[in-house]
Order: sequence, then structure tokens, then C-alpha cells
Amino acid sequence: MDLLHTLKHRHTTKAYDSERKIPAPVVAQLLEALRYSPSSVNSQPWHFFVADTAEGKARIAKSTSGTFAFNAPRVLNASHVIVLSARNTLPPEYLQTLADQEQADGRYADADARALAHKGRSGFVGLHEQAGDVATWTQKQTYIAQGFLLLSAALLGVDATPMEGFDAAILSKELGLAEKDLSPAVIVALGYHSDADFNAKLPKSRLPEKAIFSHI
Amino acid sequence: MDLLHTLKHRHTTKAYDSERKIPAPVVAQLLEALRYSPSSVNSQPWHFFVADTAEGKARIAKSTSGTFAFNAPRVLNASHVIVLSARNTLPPEYLQTLADQEQADGRYADADARALAHKGRSGFVGLHEQAGDVATWTQKQTYIAQGFLLLSAALLGVDATPMEGFDAAILSKELGLAEKDLSPAVIVALGYHSDADFNAKLPKSRLPEKAIFSHI
Repeated sequence: MDLLHTLKHRHTTKAYDSERKIPAPVVAQLLEALRYSPSSVNSQPWHFFVADTAEGKARIAKSTSGTFAFNAPRVLNASHVIVLSARNTLPPEYLQTLADQEQADGRYADADARALAHKGRSGFVGLHEQAGDVATWTQKQTYIAQGFLLLSAALLGVDATPMEGFDAAILSKELGLAEKDLSPAVIVALGYHSDADFNAKLPKSRLPEKAIFSHI
Repeated sequence: MDLLHTLKHRHTTKAYDSERKIPAPVVAQLLEALRYSPSSVNSQPWHFFVADTAEGKARIAKSTSGTFAFNAPRVLNASHVIVLSARNTLPPEYLQTLADQEQADGRYADADARALAHKGRSGFVGLHEQAGDVATWTQKQTYIAQGFLLLSAALLGVDATPMEGFDAAILSKELGLAEKDLSPAVIVALGYHSDADFNAKLPKSRLPEKAIFSHI
């Protein structure tokens, strides 16, 4: 794996070879990239819907209609399609679940360490509740996971298409997101590009270093 | 580079060895991870302030005071500290800059291709302007870049600390962000952990697969 080469040569795939499936061991690594993504105060405020069947992809494609119809073939022809969704709220019982998991995973030497961590996390969540931006905050965390997924895919030789172009209301209804206290963040199609993928042949474009970096 | 091992063993560093500096060729790769990060409609709506001097880190540390003083040693002792900031607006002249860059980089076969891409990008920006969420949208894109940076750091053996715990008003004033139409998103410290980094010795904790994945 050459990181720099991967960074410069990955691309957003515009058309998939519907015959090629991502091997199961590679899919497993992609899902671990999502699961092991960092998030503020280890909140893990996300849920991922993974479609690898024609039926599952067709359900997601209901949200790529109308204005967003250009994305439908990507959803339908990719090997796997993942809907990244974020929690709307982080209620006390969820924070308790996180504390229980961290204890089970061996992060606390004693009850004091656990109490301190729980208090710190609850404090940060409280700040966002006061600011009224919990749902925005969790969406942002989910974008870190998106970054982990897209870079991991490229490193593993898997093509990807991140898509914000979908009807959130249709997708929410189809997946019952509101009842699960979730909102959709982004859809990521994964697989292998076809010859029709014009973007595979085009050079990448990025602003020059001087435009985006200031050294202080 | 073993991706799965990296995913499972990277951690948020709590204390840095202030004597160890990241070698220049590694820093160059970390900055390329930011620059080559994907963003919706290739908007690249970000600016990164890179501090590798004591003075630069002290300027950033002005924002890690009071409630956020626990983060100050991480900012001051890390090898490099990067402030990831996002554009507040995406005005027509900025969209023109993107189109010019893409043309210079050879992405357009002809004027029609350029016009189509420009129209598509402007349309998406317009949707967010109508929704009044441009600044939230650009912040989210910057979190993809955060993901690219954190995973790249781990792959390159560099420790990192993403920090949302800072005073945004102080940091904005110190870096003159408002005048540049920018808002701070997150601070990421980079370097090598010290023996005082308790988190380097603790196991990671993540929710189980069944809690965060639904296969459809």
C-alpha cells in the first residue's frame, strides 16, 4: 500500500461493473473501517445500513429519483451500498450503553475512572444540547467515518461513490430512520468501475498548496 | 501497512513527547492527505493552519484555556498542530476558481463539459444556500478531511489527537478567520506519544457489529 499514490489516484466512480462483487474478506475490512472510526468522546453516534442484495439496493434507490436520478445506476450497479446515518439525539440511556461497553472492553481500572469518563462525555453532550446542535454534531462525526471508509476502500483497491444527492425524506421513510432516532448522512456505493466510468480516466484536480495551507 | 491492524490499534493520544518531531517527508504526506481528501462537488471548502513552531502552537493554545485547558499540553507539546477550518460561504467567484483549477488540471475536454460541471456544482451550492446550511455543509466536508488525516497519520506511524474542545471565538480572533470567511472545525495535534499517554496502554472500545450495522 502506497498511501501517497492511493491519495492521488483514487476517484469518485461514475459507473460500476455490475458483475463484479467485492470479496467478503474485503467487505469485512471496510465495515471495520467504519466501526473503528474515531468520534468525539467516542460517541459512535451512527448506524450503517449495508445493502449487498438487489432488493436492498432497490430500497435505497427509491431515494435516488427525480432530481437525483443520475445517482440511481450507481446505487443499483455497485457491489455494496452503505447508508451512513447519524443519531438525532444522545439520550442518557445511550451514554450508559457506551460506558458499559467501555467497561466491558477493559478501559476502566476502577469505578472512579468510569465515573470520570462518563461525566466528561455527558458534559460534552450537554454543551451540544444547550447549543441545540446535537444532530449536526453527530452528522459531522459520521463524516469522519465516511473519510475512513473512502480512504480504506481506495487502499484496498475498491472504487467508491459518496452521494449526498438523494431524497432524505424518502430514504428515511424506507429505512424507518425516524423511529430509530436516526437521520441519513450520506450514501456510499462501493465496487469496481466499468468502462463507462469517464471519471476513471480524468486527472484529479485540487487547489494548490498555497491556497489551502497557512504555516504559522 | 496493515490496514486492519492500524484501524484497531490507532488511538487518541493524551500526552506527547515534545522532543520528537515528525520527519518532513511524513509531514508532506499528511498535508497531501488533507489536500487530496474528497469533498462534495469537489468544493474543497477548507483552509488548514499548520503550526510547527513554538510560536504557532502558542497562538493555537490561546483557545485551549479555561474549560478546555486540559487540551493545552497536547497543543503545546505535539510536533505539529493543524487547525482545520471551513468556509462560511461559497460565493460565485470561489466557484469560478474551482472551475479554473479543474480546467488547468485537464478535467474538461471542451467548453461544454466545463459549463456542465460548473452548472452542476453551482446547483448543489444553491440548494444549500436555499436551505441556509452552507456553513454546516462545509464543516461536514472538513470532517471527511479529518478522517483522511487521522487514518493517514495512523498508517504512517504518527500519533494524533483530534480536539473539538477549544474556544472557537478565541481561535477565530487569533487566526483572523472571520475576515477570511472561515470558521474553525477541529484542531488536530500530531506527533509521538510520551510515557504519560495513558490511552496508549488502554484497549480500544467499540460498539459491537450488531449495534451499528443493519444488512438489508
